[in-house]
Amino acid sequence: MVDFQYSAMAGRLRRSEIRELLKLTRNPETISFAGGLPDPAIFPYDAVEAASLRAIHACGRHALQYSPTEGDPFLKEQLIQFMARHGEPVKPENLLVVASSQQGIDLLSKVFIDPGDPIIVERPTYVGTIQAFRAFNADFHGAEIDHDGVIPEKLEQLVIRLIDEGRKPKFVYLIPDFQNPSGITLSLERRSQVLALATAYDLVIVEDSPYRELRYEGDLLPSLYSLDRDGRVIQLKTFSKIFCPGFRIGWMVGPAEVIDKFVMAKQGTDLCTAAYVSIIAGFLIQDGHLEKQIEISKKLYQRKRAAMLAALEKYMPKIDGLWWSKPEGGMFLWLQLPEGIDANDMIDDAIDLKVAFVIGSCFFHDGSNRNTMRLNYSYPTEEQIAEGIRRLATLVERRLAVSPVR
Amino acid sequence: MVDFQYSAMAGRLRRSEIRELLKLTRNPETISFAGGLPDPAIFPYDAVEAASLRAIHACGRHALQYSPTEGDPFLKEQLIQFMARHGEPVKPENLLVVASSQQGIDLLSKVFIDPGDPIIVERPTYVGTIQAFRAFNADFHGAEIDHDGVIPEKLEQLVIRLIDEGRKPKFVYLIPDFQNPSGITLSLERRSQVLALATAYDLVIVEDSPYRELRYEGDLLPSLYSLDRDGRVIQLKTFSKIFCPGFRIGWMVGPAEVIDKFVMAKQGTDLCTAAYVSIIAGFLIQDGHLEKQIEISKKLYQRKRAAMLAALEKYMPKIDGLWWSKPEGGMFLWLQLPEGIDANDMIDDAIDLKVAFVIGSCFFHDGSNRNTMRLNYSYPTEEQIAEGIRRLATLVERRLAVSPVR
Repeated sequence: MVDFQYSAMAGRLRRSEIRELLKLTRNPETISFAGGLPDPAIFPYDAVEAASLRAIHACGRHALQYSPTEGDPFLKEQLIQFMARHGEPVKPENLLVVASSQQGIDLLSKVFIDPGDPIIVERPTYVGTIQAFRAFNADFHGAEIDHDGVIPEKLEQLVIRLIDEGRKPKFVYLIPDFQNPSGITLSLERRSQVLALATAYDLVIVEDSPYRELRYEGDLLPSLYSLDRDGRVIQLKTFSKIFCPGFRIGWMVGPAEVIDKFVMAKQGTDLCTAAYVSIIAGFLIQDGHLEKQIEISKKLYQRKRAAMLAALEKYMPKIDGLWWSKPEGGMFLWLQLPEGIDANDMIDDAIDLKVAFVIGSCFFHDGSNRNTMRLNYSYPTEEQIAEGIRRLATLVERRLAVSPVR
Repeated sequence: MVDFQYSAMAGRLRRSEIRELLKLTRNPETISFAGGLPDPAIFPYDAVEAASLRAIHACGRHALQYSPTEGDPFLKEQLIQFMARHGEPVKPENLLVVASSQQGIDLLSKVFIDPGDPIIVERPTYVGTIQAFRAFNADFHGAEIDHDGVIPEKLEQLVIRLIDEGRKPKFVYLIPDFQNPSGITLSLERRSQVLALATAYDLVIVEDSPYRELRYEGDLLPSLYSLDRDGRVIQLKTFSKIFCPGFRIGWMVGPAEVIDKFVMAKQGTDLCTAAYVSIIAGFLIQDGHLEKQIEISKKLYQRKRAAMLAALEKYMPKIDGLWWSKPEGGMFLWLQLPEGIDANDMIDDAIDLKVAFVIGSCFFHDGSNRNTMRLNYSYPTEEQIAEGIRRLATLVERRLAVSPVR
């Protein structure tokens, strides 16, 4: 046997519970609320085909070659125009094309996190972020959220405590719009409060924003990036939720100084993002297909969200402590079960009943809140949503019968 | 001003000298021997177009969606068949699709390198590897090479010394075929010797193999991976040199235990490789276009290599200490100038004369050997090669006149 001597980072790597779960749910009869997948029924196949042909015919030499690490210039220009149309003016030196916003999180880790460095995340937060920051051995501190997002007073207390301990956080990582996993949105008032806090304590804010454009009710709120006057917000964006995940195209915007560090880190990470899909993405934006796709997605997911809310209302037992979020956009809804119920204990039954969800505790850096689950409504059909929630309610009732609420 | 507190890794990041140089050489009149780019004149545009249409029509739902972290199953199957046809049988659990072999190097760093860990690289070696390993603060040890590649006796001495110091290297990183930058190939006899050493001292071998299929004379040598009987070789492969770089598709093969670690590391790095280009690549392999493209590339680059060797013979001054490699394949040739000549001092003149090269010292982890340069012959045309080498010879003669050889 060869004696492989792995790194400390390798020892901290955890298999993604969601991705492992997704393998279990490949059974086509299983209704899955587990993933965070857009509905392939609305992928713009014809537009992608046309853009692919155009990429080859109009600029094949560039499309099949290496691209600059900063990103294909044509795609950058289209992304800048897209952001300008949506109230977020950026300059080329403030934007880096990345191969998925998950890569953005990896670059962020590389450029900011030394082992043991304190960082602040929401409780709960995106599991892929927890995984990436954990690999770099970040010292997690959780900021509490309520139905309006992160609570500024609690965030300030946490920041003061950390600074008093000589452990100023490297950054505060937030998902302000239709947060993954909770579906909750940071209110406009709190956005200002969070930025005022950031100015007062000289904090760096990371705004992960994959869902912002997918709003089904209420007004689009300005991003933290657009509200920031100091140049302290780094924003992560992606094609995955608002167009399709199969390109692995995302982008980061932020202060030129920081973007320059990310560019250097990206050189050693993958040299450059794929030119072919970059140019295809550029044509799709130029021809208005990104905005068109956002409108199509909004219409469909709005209906699916309504279907899930209606099914929960219809099937879930009416008891204290059982609660779910009413997201104004995005892809997820958060279900909280009475204290003492462990969603983990429901997995085997769920596989039997052919319904899948993600245990909420994997979205907490400390693995707490085992009485929660994340439900995705963008991928299943409306019929599947109704039937799946019926099955889930059966599961909940069974579990309530076994372990009575304390 | 916001006070960004970067990581120690950020402090170790260096801008890639090659990529910065490539920006300087965007002047279309400049003849560039600097990059490592395949010739876009032979990119198989029609085949890519057909494969793209097929990916959308035959499996669009998969092509535009997330793919498994391990890689799209169809592409994995095609890669396994491709490797089997080329004498390298692998099983699915031994193969991971990556978004470029540079990503493979990043995953390797994450899974194996703790700050200060000793590793062994050739002198010279691929600059992108130096950058990536340096970011992770590896302790570099250089193994000398000659015209048959790494010298086993010297490698053994180095290994013994490190083990005696209690600093056994995490792995030995080698580029056995038409090495970047030197163009040199590890002989068959030495491949066996290196593997025997690895067995004797329980070493892990990383075989970076982007060029192996691009052989223009002599017999294809078996890879270290195929010769290994212990399961101690990790091989890195890529589409970039043998097909096109614009997809960012590579693959890693190795022991299942190690591949599993890479999969976990990849989850936090970018979740998965782009399904769209993965499936396109799968169809291209299935339809024989990868092998066809290798044949086309070999024919063209063989002529270009001959053109560069002939031009060097014709134009370079005949003096002691001026020497160049005669690669049997790949994309690069190595030029050594007499001791005391610093290739760095020739850059300004080179820009004036409109010819570009890469200074050899950036391929040495210690920045030594400033009297060397790497010359690429795959990208320029045969006419450009002749004219570019003539200009380069002028440069060399000028420099010899200014700083007489010691």
